[in-house]
Amino acid sequence: MASPGSGFWSFGSEDGSGDPENPGTARAWCQVAQKFTGGIGNKLCALLYGDAEKAAESGGSEPPRATSRKAACSCNQKPCSCSKADVNYAFLHATDLLPACDGERPTLAFLQDVMDILLQYVVKSFDRSTKVIDFHYPNELLQEYNWELADQPQNLEEILMHCQTTLKYAIKTGHPRYFNQLSTGLDMVGLAADWLTSTANTNMFTYEIAPVFVLLEYVTLKKMREIIGWPGGSGDGIFSPGGAISNMYAMLIARFKMFPEVKEKGMAAVPRLIAFTSEHSHFSLKKGAAALGIGTDSVILIRCDERGKMIPSDLERRILEAKQKGFVPFLVSATAGTTVYGAFDPLLAVADICKKYKIWMHVDGLMQSCNQMHASYLFQQDKHYDLSYDTGDKALQCGRHVDVFKLWLMWRAKGTTGFEAHIDKCLELAEYLYNIIKNREGYEMVFDGKPQHTNVCFWYVPPSLRVLEDNEERMSRLSKVAPVIKARMMEYGTTMVSYQPLGDKVNFFRMVISNPAATHQDIDFLIEEIERLGQDL
Amino acid sequence: MASPGSGFWSFGSEDGSGDPENPGTARAWCQVAQKFTGGIGNKLCALLYGDAEKAAESGGSEPPRATSRKAACSCNQKPCSCSKADVNYAFLHATDLLPACDGERPTLAFLQDVMDILLQYVVKSFDRSTKVIDFHYPNELLQEYNWELADQPQNLEEILMHCQTTLKYAIKTGHPRYFNQLSTGLDMVGLAADWLTSTANTNMFTYEIAPVFVLLEYVTLKKMREIIGWPGGSGDGIFSPGGAISNMYAMLIARFKMFPEVKEKGMAAVPRLIAFTSEHSHFSLKKGAAALGIGTDSVILIRCDERGKMIPSDLERRILEAKQKGFVPFLVSATAGTTVYGAFDPLLAVADICKKYKIWMHVDGLMQSCNQMHASYLFQQDKHYDLSYDTGDKALQCGRHVDVFKLWLMWRAKGTTGFEAHIDKCLELAEYLYNIIKNREGYEMVFDGKPQHTNVCFWYVPPSLRVLEDNEERMSRLSKVAPVIKARMMEYGTTMVSYQPLGDKVNFFRMVISNPAATHQDIDFLIEEIERLGQDL
Repeated sequence: MASPGSGFWSFGSEDGSGDPENPGTARAWCQVAQKFTGGIGNKLCALLYGDAEKAAESGGSEPPRATSRKAACSCNQKPCSCSKADVNYAFLHATDLLPACDGERPTLAFLQDVMDILLQYVVKSFDRSTKVIDFHYPNELLQEYNWELADQPQNLEEILMHCQTTLKYAIKTGHPRYFNQLSTGLDMVGLAADWLTSTANTNMFTYEIAPVFVLLEYVTLKKMREIIGWPGGSGDGIFSPGGAISNMYAMLIARFKMFPEVKEKGMAAVPRLIAFTSEHSHFSLKKGAAALGIGTDSVILIRCDERGKMIPSDLERRILEAKQKGFVPFLVSATAGTTVYGAFDPLLAVADICKKYKIWMHVDGLMQSCNQMHASYLFQQDKHYDLSYDTGDKALQCGRHVDVFKLWLMWRAKGTTGFEAHIDKCLELAEYLYNIIKNREGYEMVFDGKPQHTNVCFWYVPPSLRVLEDNEERMSRLSKVAPVIKARMMEYGTTMVSYQPLGDKVNFFRMVISNPAATHQDIDFLIEEIERLGQDL
Repeated sequence: MASPGSGFWSFGSEDGSGDPENPGTARAWCQVAQKFTGGIGNKLCALLYGDAEKAAESGGSEPPRATSRKAACSCNQKPCSCSKADVNYAFLHATDLLPACDGERPTLAFLQDVMDILLQYVVKSFDRSTKVIDFHYPNELLQEYNWELADQPQNLEEILMHCQTTLKYAIKTGHPRYFNQLSTGLDMVGLAADWLTSTANTNMFTYEIAPVFVLLEYVTLKKMREIIGWPGGSGDGIFSPGGAISNMYAMLIARFKMFPEVKEKGMAAVPRLIAFTSEHSHFSLKKGAAALGIGTDSVILIRCDERGKMIPSDLERRILEAKQKGFVPFLVSATAGTTVYGAFDPLLAVADICKKYKIWMHVDGLMQSCNQMHASYLFQQDKHYDLSYDTGDKALQCGRHVDVFKLWLMWRAKGTTGFEAHIDKCLELAEYLYNIIKNREGYEMVFDGKPQHTNVCFWYVPPSLRVLEDNEERMSRLSKVAPVIKARMMEYGTTMVSYQPLGDKVNFFRMVISNPAATHQDIDFLIEEIERLGQDL
């Protein structure tokens, strides 16, 4: 798959800068970069024109290491007087860094060099001439490098090399042609915020140890509640480690609201509870039901229409059915943007049904009384500040990662209007893709009509299948097409997009556009790449 | 509390460098720093000797902003030709950064400037002459700065200012005198690894999108299982977002092992389950029981001895009691290092009892079959690589934060021996503290004998209380001492250490030593500071 020597450090072979006739963008960029970033400028340029080419020429599969370190100094004097040249990482270890005595200097040099590696990666991430992934099978990758942990420490040169190697094999999730997941793209302000979060290195237990972050979570959640329409932003909330845990929270809250005694007595004390969600909803609902002692059998999947939206009449029918059996409907989890089709359930119709039958509709709230355990070692009630800011007892976790700063800083940088513009652009690109492929030979849409969200679901039908009748054999062959194209995409490293089956639909591509770096040209590229990689199937 | 102008940027007033008679360490450091870090050197030095002093003199409560930006250029030529001076952030927005056309240059300048802010914070974190915290009450802090989110974007100058301001009010968790939580200290290699993790910006769903990180989790968990004694490191595991979720996993697994049908049928299909844990165990056990539909009443707290260790005979008695009632004991959660005392339950004796009654003892395993939901959109079974590396379906979450790289890189940098040395040092410091205060006037130990772990639990008894008899009034007054001392610590910002009550013991200090920056002198300082702040109570 991965051709040796075509990795992270070999700018020359990938973007054309190694060709003296074609200086390419790298050279121009280098001229600019050298002006202002003390570390990265010199190093990158040395790589572009110096050691990197040698490394590429040598063509070894060994990750280029010593070369990259040497590149920090590109003069001919030995010993040289270049910046950083006198910090010899081969003789330094973690114990030489802060808080060691005299640790400031090696620490600043080391962290700056790590940063230079990261900045190079960032720049490469957005370069369409680089690969999205340098793919290796797990066993290959395990053998490609020594990843094992040992008793003895390694020196800082080795540590910097590990950073380079890790990024060499990483997926460039910010690459303009990475479309693989719902979440793609690398936001520069978000990245800066995440670095700051790492540096602040605290957690969300209490106001005491995360004063700013707790306040920012308060401000951000209030703003979000305002946007979804709660008067004055009233209500409660908490950041959780992902959507699956959030869905579990919804289920916990619905159950606690109806039967608060469940907290002490468990499910033994309550009747059989039934939750309802659409057949296109996220699998975490079932996962949550399994974990919470409700059981997956008690999650009823409501039928969807052709576009993936929950059918309200089917919901009402199943609620009545459950009640007739003596079960207690306690939760309807509606979906606003399903995972695969990007469909929005008819929220108002669902809300009417929930109101009619007094069933909790998936809205966060009631967190604290549901989860709190009053751990006295953590949530002392005699502290000297307003304890309502100690949010830790609301969460399922004890310590909680600081997630808010990234969102908050991005929000400040973009404004609400900036997020709107980004979403509009993604919707426009989804429609652009839809308009191209809906009538294009070799493509079939999974459902008719414009996409409701940024998901575009389609099959690519290779020429050999186009002549077949619509029977089981064709289906069986079609189901194998997307996996092969996807595998080839990864092997070439040119782009990535996800596929899956759903219900009676065999494997289809699910293109979700969220990447801020994607343009019309990248959509065009994707279509052509699918055809290039799939036409012989 | 927080004196205006004494914040993050005012080096001059805090470390003595503003005093021309006393150049202090900052000046010396500056001379070194200027040599090799293009950005930070100039800027820090300008701050130390130039603009920062002016800012400090002006004494406004406004966070110093324009000054700090200007500091990037310290020459007198306007327009100057200094590095970065021509990047005017006031006219740049997030939309000018990558992936924008011509975005590389402002992006690299912006990220480098963020990094300079972070590096300054790192250096200050280890400086004993700086405050651990610049404390403000929540309402003060809310009003101190405009944290609100708005419709319109802000420019990058404002974004950089937000970064500075956020760090100004942050707790320095790496400060040598920060002892507030179990987790303290800022590791330089860990920090570098976390920055890289942020930059790689992927998640642990599948091997497909996190090839290296999935492998590193595999390697690291295997190594950890080897260390705890599983033959050949066999077994399974996963990183989870904290200990509370891990404890919930233990409970899920124990239940699933005994009654696999609970996944589909829920708790209605199983008899009443009982879990056992010590009265000193972490509150997350009860939190887990509440969430999982087991109920907190079904968690039996086993008595501990004076040192906080579970009493095996009490465990066996309570197991028999539960069985006699027709309940099913399914889990004993033993603790190796309790939260408050740092006690180790007698694991072998507990294991014997678990074996005798066939009860699951808290050990991770069986993850996947317990939690998996086979979401076809994510975990396609027809992918082209070894699917055992798609670990996502083991977790309660769907997307999962990349936590492993930080640990892995630190492990490579320190070696197992480095971690051992760190733990030994912490144990030695705990014993040092114990030896000083055990016979010192005004101190009482919460339990007798050397600390078993790095937790040292003690009361400080102010002179006015030393003459009182050991009665209820004394207890009541003693319970108010630690909260006041802690509040004063935070207001002065000199150190932080946690306190809490436990059972019939009123509020006591729980000093847990984990900070790699802490020295004997910092322990001495803590003792003197407690006396200084508490002697009048």
